[in-house]
Amino acid sequence: MGGLTVMRALRARLPGEDYVYLGDTARLPYGTKSAETVTRYAVQASAALMRHGIKLLVVACNTASAAALPTLAETLAPLPVVGVIAPGAAAAVAAAPDGPIAVIATEGTVKGGAYVRAIQAIAPHMPVVQQAAPLFVALAEEGLHDGPLPELAAQRYLGPLLATVPRPRGLVLGCTHFPVLKQVIAQVAGPEVTLIDSAETTAAAVGDVLRKQNLLNGEGGTARFLATDAPGRFAHLGQIFLGEPIDPGSVTLVDL
Amino acid sequence: MGGLTVMRALRARLPGEDYVYLGDTARLPYGTKSAETVTRYAVQASAALMRHGIKLLVVACNTASAAALPTLAETLAPLPVVGVIAPGAAAAVAAAPDGPIAVIATEGTVKGGAYVRAIQAIAPHMPVVQQAAPLFVALAEEGLHDGPLPELAAQRYLGPLLATVPRPRGLVLGCTHFPVLKQVIAQVAGPEVTLIDSAETTAAAVGDVLRKQNLLNGEGGTARFLATDAPGRFAHLGQIFLGEPIDPGSVTLVDL
Repeated sequence: MGGLTVMRALRARLPGEDYVYLGDTARLPYGTKSAETVTRYAVQASAALMRHGIKLLVVACNTASAAALPTLAETLAPLPVVGVIAPGAAAAVAAAPDGPIAVIATEGTVKGGAYVRAIQAIAPHMPVVQQAAPLFVALAEEGLHDGPLPELAAQRYLGPLLATVPRPRGLVLGCTHFPVLKQVIAQVAGPEVTLIDSAETTAAAVGDVLRKQNLLNGEGGTARFLATDAPGRFAHLGQIFLGEPIDPGSVTLVDL
Repeated sequence: MGGLTVMRALRARLPGEDYVYLGDTARLPYGTKSAETVTRYAVQASAALMRHGIKLLVVACNTASAAALPTLAETLAPLPVVGVIAPGAAAAVAAAPDGPIAVIATEGTVKGGAYVRAIQAIAPHMPVVQQAAPLFVALAEEGLHDGPLPELAAQRYLGPLLATVPRPRGLVLGCTHFPVLKQVIAQVAGPEVTLIDSAETTAAAVGDVLRKQNLLNGEGGTARFLATDAPGRFAHLGQIFLGEPIDPGSVTLVDL
């Protein structure tokens, strides 16, 4: 579901492209699963998207990007594959060049340490602190974006991060579900912490790749959706993340 | 994961039995999935358990019991299959014979209406009110069993139920995750509401079936675990629900 926040940024920046979005609703969430299982599921999902004649694959999920990007790039070569971790890491270093940088993400992304590696590949001595924030996924999917419950959850997760000395200057929203809770997170983090949402920078990275490879589309702008379970629920819930209505008739049930 | 609360009650009541527990950790949670998908997954899981020579199947998940019990019973006949809904409904009517009865459960269980049907099959005019409580699953899995976050969540979910006139006298914990949050739920519900945890009554129902079919085991008491992903995480998290340590070496990874 969270990948729709990336699709939203993509459609805003590259409105002439045609999009096919696959939501693995039968097996979500990926954030608590092992890297092996996430990789297997991501490969299956990409195969289904290949059958739709895609020209580029966006891995619009931090957990899948962290676990499966090398495998996907290798499997689908020469098709360009863009994940959300590298653009997020670059944006974090740009926004808080003196650090430290804090990362909130799923259990899987935190454990794998992909953000730490991606940030330190750009800024080798950058201090990075991490915190898994699994409740944010449930809150986002329930549409609980403000009020005391998300506030308490934000205090719980950000408290230890903000207590780091020196205090983090950048906070990476390292899960595509988190942008819908941005306001509450920003409020708890305070004005001195810059929030980094990798959706925007991922969309910019996709634009760069398409431009370089002469693949940009001027006309089009269609959006099709594939879901592995409950397409009606996908359409209904998806609007929160996509920020525009999803016609239930545009969602096709697929079996991976 | 939640099914381990049922296993805990089973082991307390029937300590001489040998148990094989399967946790579909690769595809959890079932609570937000469609009845069709839950049924498919439950049939696959039961096939894996059949290969371990089981003499009875307990469907230790409310969502799977609500969606898949008839299919499982038919597929596995003559093997006895016991779900958690019917025992829970019977316990609710016994505990609050004058009603009303409130049910908190997953989205899938609430939508399917299985508790309403099971309760009204025993007490045809019993008023039943329902509320999906998805955040409870995330709180239970994160080990957040008390404190302000589960309290606020309980107020959110129980508020509308407790405002029912007349006030409900029985509250069914209609998801196997919820018993670990029992204390907070009881505190918010108040002393006039009886909490019904179907784990106990399911264990009693299993004892009855085994007794009637002359299948009771006096000796044994072993426990083996199968998980479809991340057996280490299963062992670690599972202890919360089982109430006893799980040796990671006793958890086998299986592919359904």
